Amino acid sequence: MTSPLRLGIAGIGTVGVGVIRIVQRHADMLTARSGRPVTISAVSARARNKDRGVRLGDYAWEDDPVTLAGRDDVDVFVELVGGDTGPAKDAVEAALKAGKDVVTANKALLAHHGQALAELAEANGAVIRFEAAVAGGIPCIKALGEGLSGNEITRVMGVMNGTCNYILTRMESAGLAYDTVFQEASDLGYLEADPTLDVGGIDAGHKLALLASLAFGCQVDFDGVALEGIERIAIDDINHAADMGFRVKLLGVAQMTGRGLEARMSPCLVPASSPLGQLEGATNMVVLEGDSVGQVVLRGAGAGEGPTASAVMGDVMDIARGIRLPTFGRPAASLAKPKRADANVPAPFYLRMVLTDKPGALAKIASCLGEAGISIDRMRQYDHAAGSAPVLIVTHKAMRQSLDSAIAAMSGTGVLESDPVALRIEDV
Amino acid sequence: MTSPLRLGIAGIGTVGVGVIRIVQRHADMLTARSGRPVTISAVSARARNKDRGVRLGDYAWEDDPVTLAGRDDVDVFVELVGGDTGPAKDAVEAALKAGKDVVTANKALLAHHGQALAELAEANGAVIRFEAAVAGGIPCIKALGEGLSGNEITRVMGVMNGTCNYILTRMESAGLAYDTVFQEASDLGYLEADPTLDVGGIDAGHKLALLASLAFGCQVDFDGVALEGIERIAIDDINHAADMGFRVKLLGVAQMTGRGLEARMSPCLVPASSPLGQLEGATNMVVLEGDSVGQVVLRGAGAGEGPTASAVMGDVMDIARGIRLPTFGRPAASLAKPKRADANVPAPFYLRMVLTDKPGALAKIASCLGEAGISIDRMRQYDHAAGSAPVLIVTHKAMRQSLDSAIAAMSGTGVLESDPVALRIEDV
Repeated sequence: MTSPLRLGIAGIGTVGVGVIRIVQRHADMLTARSGRPVTISAVSARARNKDRGVRLGDYAWEDDPVTLAGRDDVDVFVELVGGDTGPAKDAVEAALKAGKDVVTANKALLAHHGQALAELAEANGAVIRFEAAVAGGIPCIKALGEGLSGNEITRVMGVMNGTCNYILTRMESAGLAYDTVFQEASDLGYLEADPTLDVGGIDAGHKLALLASLAFGCQVDFDGVALEGIERIAIDDINHAADMGFRVKLLGVAQMTGRGLEARMSPCLVPASSPLGQLEGATNMVVLEGDSVGQVVLRGAGAGEGPTASAVMGDVMDIARGIRLPTFGRPAASLAKPKRADANVPAPFYLRMVLTDKPGALAKIASCLGEAGISIDRMRQYDHAAGSAPVLIVTHKAMRQSLDSAIAAMSGTGVLESDPVALRIEDV
Repeated sequence: MTSPLRLGIAGIGTVGVGVIRIVQRHADMLTARSGRPVTISAVSARARNKDRGVRLGDYAWEDDPVTLAGRDDVDVFVELVGGDTGPAKDAVEAALKAGKDVVTANKALLAHHGQALAELAEANGAVIRFEAAVAGGIPCIKALGEGLSGNEITRVMGVMNGTCNYILTRMESAGLAYDTVFQEASDLGYLEADPTLDVGGIDAGHKLALLASLAFGCQVDFDGVALEGIERIAIDDINHAADMGFRVKLLGVAQMTGRGLEARMSPCLVPASSPLGQLEGATNMVVLEGDSVGQVVLRGAGAGEGPTASAVMGDVMDIARGIRLPTFGRPAASLAKPKRADANVPAPFYLRMVLTDKPGALAKIASCLGEAGISIDRMRQYDHAAGSAPVLIVTHKAMRQSLDSAIAAMSGTGVLESDPVALRIEDV
């Protein structure tokens, strides 16, 4: 029996409690699988005397996660504090400087400081593992970084914010408006304190930035992810999409193109019969595409105590077993700054708009599209009332940039009642 | 730059060519990701002068895979010969005895000799990796053995024979009889030389035995897998199942119960709306369930040059990166012989039978079920012709053993025209 692997856990919220439960419940199993005991030396959280329903008395207590990270009896610093600055960042840096390995669920921290932290880890002979930061319990970081390491990755996609997928599928199944379901999700405690992190696509964008770095061997570039939230999706969009055999998903797509790395997190239409289209509720899905493997689809719980703790423990077990890989799959110094694509891969687009009910309005819209070089695949005008006319257009493949200039031109015609909703139809 | 990892590849069929192509095409990428070059020293196959569409001139040639396995310039023996005896087994043993690591796609070899080979590997400080042996390109061995290693695994399921899934989904979509589609699959070259390996569930059973060993920390026990093929599935079964919202799949299930390890590979009904139910064509799916993670679903190509070579290279890259784990997730000596479950977990069953069209026939059948303690959930009698009556019964939850005794009793009544088809309805 070799020496135990000793954890220091900072942050004892839902996930921290889950990790402690696994270590306590499955001590023998973890030892049998890794060849050494996995133990907890010390923990840290904001409130010491809170009842968390889990036994903490055997562990040393530290008020300050930075102190915890530096303890001599901690081999692996498990960071479950959250946030891209402040104590989480300070403590991770302290752990790495002390040569300790880090396991984290903190997507924001790595999305903003991944490159610097990876360099710091390597300079100190430490590793950073972050399976729990992306798509909860789905072992997608391992699948991408290890299982598919013989592939040139061609595209990575994911529905990685369970709250957004819950909102969109609930709108469809119950026929409810966005605002109503947003309020429901809020009441159920599904939303972050700042809901923009969820519905604005930021949280999912963090995850996509991490996947893209690993997939394409480049530095994490969260600022290069084009973000668009689901706030403007109306029940009409969901119904129109369904009529045409599509579903609306907040979909992340990263792909290396001849024009650079294209990364975007935005509401898209995907075929209702595809695995992504069939994804219901808060479940997450990650789609990995490689030149040899083709398409691999991974599906599972994206959040919650058990699934996220499972991912944390997968990383802890890897470290216990001596698996030591660079943070983003290759040495940090060899990760190039990604060239951001100056244009997106063309796709068909779904456009919904409301026109003033005047003669020639539709002709003006069509001519704006034509002048931008965009041809129309289908168009539908719905019943209208009170002088305005809802119109639905599906274009042939077009560049997003061309579409944006067409939309800008439409605004100048005076026939639009409000800004059109434009959704990419992704070929998944 | 550390020293290259040198491969010796035995078997240059579809998968071998795929592996060689990856090594040739992606030399720089593999080096960047693993920190060392991956090279091929020598190859071996039955026919030397066959045009395989790939450049072999740089590699030494061996007629005998055993000699290849022993070469000084080979670090990893890649076994793509196939078969559970003969040259594949001899060469793998030779490689392990020489302390060389083995990467294999050979499910039959490991299903029959996994324990002995794992012991041999450990005695010689070598590792065996077999991602390519289970579900082709899907990194399910890695997900189960590493990613979910913080979980007590509660159940593992899989549709892992693409040919069978092709046959079953093609029967449904084209409304064709089993024999017709079987012939199509044969003409398309989808079937093994001995088609029983596919349609009899043997190939998929091998894979399930490997997953079960890894999932439950026990010795591989292929003989403990209850095998049932798809040969008796009629288009009627598929249509009746569809009417009730189900699809028929050749489904492998392994779970640890209070009565021991239950492992079976058999045609089952699964909800049409579940990920397993939605799986079309030759695609594979593996479902992993753990006490913390819940359900993780993995989907991808189960065979073919690229996907299988991707899995082989994933293993090669792990070895290049210094990842060295016991074959079945824990030391071979600690793997217990599994106690085989003496009874299956109860489930509802679908029963189809043809009765002689005589008064009281149905009553006799119903009473056979009643006497075995099985209650009927639904029953349907179809139009009949020429003196016989097709009957469809769905039972409430029952033990398979009880059902078998009911069916035996039915045979004694003289009202059955032929043996009933009984399919488990799996709760997926």
